Amino acid sequence: MQRRIDLNCDMGESFGPWRMGDDAGVMPYITSANIACGFHAGDSETMRATVALAVDQAVAIGAHVGLPDLEGFGRREMAIDARQAYAYTLHQLGALSGFAQAAGTALHHVKPHGALYHMVAREASLARAMVDAIRSFDARLCVYGPAGSALSAASAVAGVRFVAEGFADRRYGDDGLLLPRSEVGAVIESVADAVAQALRFMELGLPGAASPTAMETLCLHGDRSDAATFARESRQALERAGIRLIAPGHADK
Amino acid sequence: MQRRIDLNCDMGESFGPWRMGDDAGVMPYITSANIACGFHAGDSETMRATVALAVDQAVAIGAHVGLPDLEGFGRREMAIDARQAYAYTLHQLGALSGFAQAAGTALHHVKPHGALYHMVAREASLARAMVDAIRSFDARLCVYGPAGSALSAASAVAGVRFVAEGFADRRYGDDGLLLPRSEVGAVIESVADAVAQALRFMELGLPGAASPTAMETLCLHGDRSDAATFARESRQALERAGIRLIAPGHADK
Amino acid sequence: MQRRIDLNCDMGESFGPWRMGDDAGVMPYITSANIACGFHAGDSETMRATVALAVDQAVAIGAHVGLPDLEGFGRREMAIDARQAYAYTLHQLGALSGFAQAAGTALHHVKPHGALYHMVAREASLARAMVDAIRSFDARLCVYGPAGSALSAASAVAGVRFVAEGFADRRYGDDGLLLPRSEVGAVIESVADAVAQALRFMELGLPGAASPTAMETLCLHGDRSDAATFARESRQALERAGIRLIAPGHADK
Amino acid sequence: MQRRIDLNCDMGESFGPWRMGDDAGVMPYITSANIACGFHAGDSETMRATVALAVDQAVAIGAHVGLPDLEGFGRREMAIDARQAYAYTLHQLGALSGFAQAAGTALHHVKPHGALYHMVAREASLARAMVDAIRSFDARLCVYGPAGSALSAASAVAGVRFVAEGFADRRYGDDGLLLPRSEVGAVIESVADAVAQALRFMELGLPGAASPTAMETLCLHGDRSDAATFARESRQALERAGIRLIAPGHADK
Repeated sequence: MQRRIDLNCDMGESFGPWRMGDDAGVMPYITSANIACGFHAGDSETMRATVALAVDQAVAIGAHVGLPDLEGFGRREMAIDARQAYAYTLHQLGALSGFAQAAGTALHHVKPHGALYHMVAREASLARAMVDAIRSFDARLCVYGPAGSALSAASAVAGVRFVAEGFADRRYGDDGLLLPRSEVGAVIESVADAVAQALRFMELGLPGAASPTAMETLCLHGDRSDAATFARESRQALERAGIRLIAPGHADK
Repeated sequence: MQRRIDLNCDMGESFGPWRMGDDAGVMPYITSANIACGFHAGDSETMRATVALAVDQAVAIGAHVGLPDLEGFGRREMAIDARQAYAYTLHQLGALSGFAQAAGTALHHVKPHGALYHMVAREASLARAMVDAIRSFDARLCVYGPAGSALSAASAVAGVRFVAEGFADRRYGDDGLLLPRSEVGAVIESVADAVAQALRFMELGLPGAASPTAMETLCLHGDRSDAATFARESRQALERAGIRLIAPGHADK
Repeated sequence: MQRRIDLNCDMGESFGPWRMGDDAGVMPYITSANIACGFHAGDSETMRATVALAVDQAVAIGAHVGLPDLEGFGRREMAIDARQAYAYTLHQLGALSGFAQAAGTALHHVKPHGALYHMVAREASLARAMVDAIRSFDARLCVYGPAGSALSAASAVAGVRFVAEGFADRRYGDDGLLLPRSEVGAVIESVADAVAQALRFMELGLPGAASPTAMETLCLHGDRSDAATFARESRQALERAGIRLIAPGHADK
Repeated sequence: MQRRIDLNCDMGESFGPWRMGDDAGVMPYITSANIACGFHAGDSETMRATVALAVDQAVAIGAHVGLPDLEGFGRREMAIDARQAYAYTLHQLGALSGFAQAAGTALHHVKPHGALYHMVAREASLARAMVDAIRSFDARLCVYGPAGSALSAASAVAGVRFVAEGFADRRYGDDGLLLPRSEVGAVIESVADAVAQALRFMELGLPGAASPTAMETLCLHGDRSDAATFARESRQALERAGIRLIAPGHADK
């Protein structure tokens, strides 16, 4: 069984006067932060502040790339074409990297958000466009996404490092897919259950893929009301189980 | 009298289905392009296409940094504070540089747009915030703006290269300030008059500053209906007068 | 054969500094104007000015209801639900009717725009939501749309007057559907051909519907470069053919 | 001393996925709701839901008219001209009234929000434009604003009913102006103090105006964490003092 895992969480999802999540509370316990880039959430000042928070806690910075739909929080599928997927990805990578560069650091990874996560998992042309944009921007960036997806295939073809993601606090069906949030029990409430599921994935591989795929990053949701506590306790439980929390590509010390 | 000058023009000001300017027609004749970054104009695909056009014509790429006001085209002053000026500048620098980086090049300069041009010319705190953002992003970038302004002062203090701008096709009053567009004669229609004014500035320095300031860049407006012809003829007339057209910092060959 | 027809055209599609269409040139020749309401195009001042133009020319005012996507001009399908379709319709009806009311008049009709046109033609739940919003706002409004669609069915059930639309300057396939714009010949260039097609529809009914449906409104596209000439000549040719141009529900004098 | 007062509160300030305020908690205790119209806050679905809530509790519905600046929450002054002030006001009145009309009711009042509140209090041309828009839309609407302002003067000239507003939970300086929020003590924390100040205003008139002006509406802030409790207790304390809570123009039963 693998002995290391990345713990990622969506961050920087406030906008203007509106707060979302508990970024300062969660940041100390995660190893990589997916930061909204102004398309589905986030604004200039929020990006700056969230990058600063990540730098403070030595958390790897990723661009959380979404659809241009603030009102829908990037959760509504939109019929964008490959050219738009390319330009939208580049726009968001650049925007966030401006703040990273000014803070003396650089982007580490990219994760698609919301509806776009599902679209690039499913549609090869969009996945290729996103990966093209990532590679042409910085070929060393990691791509976080679902195992066995069009995005992982496009990453493999392009020679970009793909990092397979599992969800700690969401339940999976027998088919290996996430239960829809609308179903009872879709969200895992207890830390013990979430950690047990994570350890199971680390032992057996992620569900759903045709062949077992190693889970390299574990996603915690930052929008639960107990997000900071959940993150701290999950991290502690994983560490007690002998797992090292570390971002992909970061060297063990 | 100086023998070289930069010719800059605002570019990439289309948005979604709406076209503005004749970027492909003007680009061959200028030496630096100020490209809108999505705040006052421009969108992801327009930024990508405009950067590609500039790269094709070996034109220096600059971020045309504006206020977040598409409907008002960044021409309405907004009471932003220094923190916002810093974050807005960085956001736009990063966004455009993503496209430049993917195209194998990098940003060369920054020019504030519209109301922000006047605000950072006038208000020291905003000027300092903008220059801080520029320096923390890439201290080698040039800053284009009006001579004798708060922006030039802030650039000098920060050790960032300031490039004083004159306007080819706008008339100046006796006080050395641009005539408001609402006044008759504010826009210079003939190439001969525009070039004569440019040559006068190159000989005598820019008007308005307490002490004569050398003009290092000359702005052409891309939104006139004859923009491409005006650019071509202006360039040819300057070249006939023995002036070399070249971007600041670019080496004579 | 029917002796009267409505001539409708999309209007008010400028936004901020960007112009689209030739509203002042086209308005004198049409009988109903579909005015953008700020979601896919249009802004407050454009709405005001376009309503004023329609009032001047005694043209019936309709809300051109679109998806909230300025950058995509409402042409990209978005996964909105029925509750959003309801609220978006009402929001746009209200916004435009504010300008109509201030100008001493009222809305006459509603026409979905772009991707939403196709979505409410196809999906019953969205069509019902849109019609519910229309009826709850003003049950006397006409609904313009494609014959034999979910929108026409929902209108019938709700007791709202549906007005079947044909396109003058777009070619139809043998299946009765519009040829995609990407196909050669999809746009009809000559007035004679467009008018001939219109007269054929008026004689035989609209293509595509299971049973022949009378065409009650004829759409001209305002985004062709010769829009005003095309509108004037189409109108004159129809009048020469003995057709009376008049908006649905307006009484013959 | 006057025996009746209106209790108003800003409502409907959520946007997309972001919540603000406790509308359901506060609505039962107020007599008029200023509902955001999508410019500085609010979206289509939030407007619909907030109007429904107000109708349920028989609270008078007002349009809370703001600047088009979601990110800045309408709190940053923007250099709009009178034509824009007119069109922005009408746009927002229309949008909200669409939801009111569909819910079987109508708008009762208008209150400018944030920076626009101060701008129309100060600048006669903007105040006139706003009042023109209100009168041309529905001359029976009440206008809420500060006593002795450009807005009250413009309302008087236009024959529109102006309703002078005092703040319950904000402290005033000796000059009769609100203390800036940045000053210690600017916000009144205790219900007893707030009610005492309200009763003082009702006895002596509003501070700041050259001649004493009767306070006709009292504003509670909905963005305090204890908003619902504060509203309930303020209302109860006013009722115990023999004051009748009722919207302007509403008849005593």
